[in-house]
Amino acid sequence: MRPLTFSLQSSLILIFLLFFITTSVSLKVPRLSPTGGKFLHGDYWTQGRPSDASPAFDPKHFQTFYYNQTLDHFNFRPDSFNTFQQRYLINSRHWGGSNISAPILAYLGAEEEIDVDISIIGFLPENAIHFQALQLYIEHRYYGESIPFGSREEAYKNASTLGYFNSAQAIADYAEILIHVKKQLHAENSPVIVVGGSYGGMLASWFRLKYPHVALGALASSAPILYFDDIVPPETGYYSIASRDFREASETCYQIIKNSWTEIDNIASKLDGLSSLSKKFQTCRPLTNSSELKDYLDSMYSGAAQYNDPPRYPVTMICGGIDGASSTDDILTKIFAGVVAYNGNWSCYVNQPRNETETDVGWRWQSCSDMVIPISVSNDTMFPPYKFDLNKYIDDCKALYGVPPRPHWVTTYFGGQDIKLTLHKFASNIIFSNGLRDPYSSGGVLDDISDTVVAVHTKNGSHCLDILNSYHTTDPDWLVNQRKIEVRIIKGWIAKYYADLQALK
Amino acid sequence: MRPLTFSLQSSLILIFLLFFITTSVSLKVPRLSPTGGKFLHGDYWTQGRPSDASPAFDPKHFQTFYYNQTLDHFNFRPDSFNTFQQRYLINSRHWGGSNISAPILAYLGAEEEIDVDISIIGFLPENAIHFQALQLYIEHRYYGESIPFGSREEAYKNASTLGYFNSAQAIADYAEILIHVKKQLHAENSPVIVVGGSYGGMLASWFRLKYPHVALGALASSAPILYFDDIVPPETGYYSIASRDFREASETCYQIIKNSWTEIDNIASKLDGLSSLSKKFQTCRPLTNSSELKDYLDSMYSGAAQYNDPPRYPVTMICGGIDGASSTDDILTKIFAGVVAYNGNWSCYVNQPRNETETDVGWRWQSCSDMVIPISVSNDTMFPPYKFDLNKYIDDCKALYGVPPRPHWVTTYFGGQDIKLTLHKFASNIIFSNGLRDPYSSGGVLDDISDTVVAVHTKNGSHCLDILNSYHTTDPDWLVNQRKIEVRIIKGWIAKYYADLQALK
Repeated sequence: MRPLTFSLQSSLILIFLLFFITTSVSLKVPRLSPTGGKFLHGDYWTQGRPSDASPAFDPKHFQTFYYNQTLDHFNFRPDSFNTFQQRYLINSRHWGGSNISAPILAYLGAEEEIDVDISIIGFLPENAIHFQALQLYIEHRYYGESIPFGSREEAYKNASTLGYFNSAQAIADYAEILIHVKKQLHAENSPVIVVGGSYGGMLASWFRLKYPHVALGALASSAPILYFDDIVPPETGYYSIASRDFREASETCYQIIKNSWTEIDNIASKLDGLSSLSKKFQTCRPLTNSSELKDYLDSMYSGAAQYNDPPRYPVTMICGGIDGASSTDDILTKIFAGVVAYNGNWSCYVNQPRNETETDVGWRWQSCSDMVIPISVSNDTMFPPYKFDLNKYIDDCKALYGVPPRPHWVTTYFGGQDIKLTLHKFASNIIFSNGLRDPYSSGGVLDDISDTVVAVHTKNGSHCLDILNSYHTTDPDWLVNQRKIEVRIIKGWIAKYYADLQALK
Repeated sequence: MRPLTFSLQSSLILIFLLFFITTSVSLKVPRLSPTGGKFLHGDYWTQGRPSDASPAFDPKHFQTFYYNQTLDHFNFRPDSFNTFQQRYLINSRHWGGSNISAPILAYLGAEEEIDVDISIIGFLPENAIHFQALQLYIEHRYYGESIPFGSREEAYKNASTLGYFNSAQAIADYAEILIHVKKQLHAENSPVIVVGGSYGGMLASWFRLKYPHVALGALASSAPILYFDDIVPPETGYYSIASRDFREASETCYQIIKNSWTEIDNIASKLDGLSSLSKKFQTCRPLTNSSELKDYLDSMYSGAAQYNDPPRYPVTMICGGIDGASSTDDILTKIFAGVVAYNGNWSCYVNQPRNETETDVGWRWQSCSDMVIPISVSNDTMFPPYKFDLNKYIDDCKALYGVPPRPHWVTTYFGGQDIKLTLHKFASNIIFSNGLRDPYSSGGVLDDISDTVVAVHTKNGSHCLDILNSYHTTDPDWLVNQRKIEVRIIKGWIAKYYADLQALK
């Protein structure tokens, strides 16, 4: 039986980050990203991805700018008027110009420095030429170079300086920068399409809802905007989908994983059990408790499910290892075979040393302010069951920062409950794209809300796959097709906009 | 030639308040209200209105509540978590109950204590029975009893305590309270229609735009949501409409007023000129400069135009006085006859002593934070021309509060430019009602934006007339009809909502 600790279950998408975690983090919090940090922290993906990337990132076509951003848009205290330099980058290579009101594709940065996203997000560079679009990438406040208070150390000091670090302020930043850029380029009539993935996808959809006068439409990839408050029932949540992914890959693999947790606890409870587990899993340091191993495996499985990208399909890789072990091997030997199959050959596993990243630290705060994503694990998954405990979550955040999170703020400000009832006659021009194998799709919008607020999903897709770089030789047809549909929809919005512009201006 | 002072021109809607002003206010700022403070500060209206009011206000049907409101919704600094008691009142006499998801009519308070509004806003009590609606009235933060920081003195101390006092925070308050009330009443499915007038009308329309998941629709009466930034050109602005009102009432009256300003300046520039003016206008204290008189007249004329309500029609009253004077009277004697006709017989005029109200003080701050309404006077009005000077405005605010206003924030956050282009395929269920004789209608939405975001206006209407108490014997047909149209539209929204509720829940 898995201990019902906050730290274990809510670790969720620290995923690959957790592979290498060294420091003791009392509050492990879910993270949302198109990459899972994979490009930041050399691991499976850096070797695993194909190399025939299409147009994508070419630094020489980007110009970097800094906008003098207001610290607090919603307050007029003297300190609210402090500013910081917010970074954005522009690639105008394919832009048709302001004379023809050519479009702007704006990527809304999320919980990492913007450079990372620019190098992996294919949707903008690959489509800019067809749209004659300007490409704009805006960095999220408190990440990368867009740090208030003069230094990262000062900005991240405590709740007094972190307080300005939340999603409502972030999208207000984006509004200001978009208005500024359009003005600078005399492109007031250029339609803006905002694009984002995961947390950034939520920001994109919320941006269209809150700033329809700034963005004409939004492509929100793998945005679990419904994973707040009590909207997603545990039995259809994140871990249920991750489990289904494994079961679909291999029933035996699924069963072995499902049975492994008790086995780990059994061994750990014995004399020298931890030492025996450390040896079996070739851990980098001796395990100090069984949760360390279980956390690692939990993150590996859920990460593999979330980023179950073609052509290598990590879930299949893990199950290949597990199922490929000798049938006479004991259960944990099989599990370890999955670990090796997934990671490749390393000198040691599980608790490799690694420093905390800015993203770790930043997302931990965000999870303790507005991004409270209550993830439970129901009884019928391959993971140990767990019930999200809001009171414990709040206490843990208070212990970390001295202030509680606001778990109901997202649904208060952005909505979510009864979303179809609410939005089917309000709002327009949002694509919610999802891959149904992505565990976070459980918090996504999977049904059309109206003619123009639409769900585009693929049965086999993973997290944010549609907006990542294309790989022509390996991208499956369903993925190529998903991207085509998205482009066609956006072209439709823009065409209608131009017609309206002529008729109404 | 009128001096181009900020204080003169932007005094605008202090109107009746200015009648009695004693204290020297360096920054006179426009105010927006259904009443112009008329019910607060005994003047023409308190005697002038008919007394056969319909259902309206009956204190015994109201229950008062206090919500523990968050000080800063958009920040997570420790001080943001401070709370204050926000007042709201409920009248459930006609409510059909949660079983049938009967509607909630929610009046969004503006820049005065909510008691005042409850006594004069007829739209809710007069229609509650037909809608089987709950009536809810919410007080705006920093007014009435809804004061943060424990006391009015502390709350209004300086920009550090006033900083939380702005429209974005106010509508977030309303969202929290509406969600809370619905939960308390188990009325989660009850449709909410928000209603507001003037500044409160802006809040109502913005509330529907930002919180469509909380309110199904909005009735925004006399809401000049376009009177921000550079959207309204001076030549069609506030003073142009006020002038037109006078001209339509009487060409001679209009010409006399138009010519009076130079005459005032001429006399004031002479030896003992101010004393002579003081005598002619029977001022309560000797005039210290000619602006004191001109400010007063400016406010009287614009106030009369804005609140040119039936059955007495103040513009007609003033012109009756002016035109009724003897043709041999000099021009300022005629002007004074207008003053007397408007005010009735007082022992003295122009600078009657009066204390500043909470509304004076509160709206002054609001004008120096987000409510920057740039009102110019073009050359072709009956008022002295004036060009709004943003830099001077900013400097004046800084001198008052130590922080500048944010004149572009409203259009950044709420939009306004190209509103038809922006909203005709986004948003739904907003009525922008206006009376075209109301000078503030120049900043209103006067054309339908879409099938459900509609403009309802009357040629002869004044400021917020449609939502004020009905007076059966004197309300003209066009007003009765306007109200009927509004009710019919709202009934349509609610009927559609119930159909959707059945289909989608």
